[in-house]
Amino acid sequence: MKKNLILGLLISAFFGSSFVIAADAEKAIKYRRGVFNVMGWNFGSMAAMVKGKIPFDANVFARNAEIVAFMSQLPLEGFVEGSDEGDTKARPEIWLNMEDFEAKMKKMQKEVSALAEISKKGNFDASKSQLKEVGATCKGCHDDYRNK
Amino acid sequence: MKKNLILGLLISAFFGSSFVIAADAEKAIKYRRGVFNVMGWNFGSMAAMVKGKIPFDANVFARNAEIVAFMSQLPLEGFVEGSDEGDTKARPEIWLNMEDFEAKMKKMQKEVSALAEISKKGNFDASKSQLKEVGATCKGCHDDYRNK
Repeated sequence: MKKNLILGLLISAFFGSSFVIAADAEKAIKYRRGVFNVMGWNFGSMAAMVKGKIPFDANVFARNAEIVAFMSQLPLEGFVEGSDEGDTKARPEIWLNMEDFEAKMKKMQKEVSALAEISKKGNFDASKSQLKEVGATCKGCHDDYRNK
Repeated sequence: MKKNLILGLLISAFFGSSFVIAADAEKAIKYRRGVFNVMGWNFGSMAAMVKGKIPFDANVFARNAEIVAFMSQLPLEGFVEGSDEGDTKARPEIWLNMEDFEAKMKKMQKEVSALAEISKKGNFDASKSQLKEVGATCKGCHDDYRNK
């Protein structure tokens, strides 16, 4: 009995930290996926307006854009070391090219900030054109760093 | 062949709208869960500071609070009709008591706004005390409207 206890303690001393890391990684994955889901919901609304699937509502579009701009500041902190495994489509290449990944993230933040500004003016064509720029930054990063 | 096509069209005319609703409900669930995950990540950070699990950093705490305050405005639109089924812990009681659910949501928004304001001043005790108020509004709603 005592022997098992000691063995148990030794095992947890050896593996303990990686258990903690795994739990943290799982939370980080849940967090960043949450961020992207909220971005996707709002992007989807804007895309539907641009494609004429739903009527263009300048106020709703501007609110969607503002939310995406706010959210765009959040995901990076969720890409913690060791969170390339688990319930995620993130490719391990992210952590091998963190500088490039961060640069792509910054580019996206810049484009969505511009979208938030532009969409406040309520012009359909200008909003549509900038949404296309945003979409390209999403795609650019997904192509390199997200599994299908 | 033509008969099958007509039958297919009739079936999709009959069921089409509920298919659309089911797809929309799934997206709405994903969206609101995303919102709550982002809130939870930031709430968790503040709770860990308050409990002394990680050192109190007034700037990080204030940023967490600001993010939670922003996010608190978002989940309601995800509770669309028909989204009580699927990958969700939301209880059907929400849609039977939408007025009460919205009132509880508003109370939570009020408390997290207050937390965002209070935490800007950087005082640990005041932040801790208001975080407790926020936690109570989370629990109040979860007890009634969220499955374990």
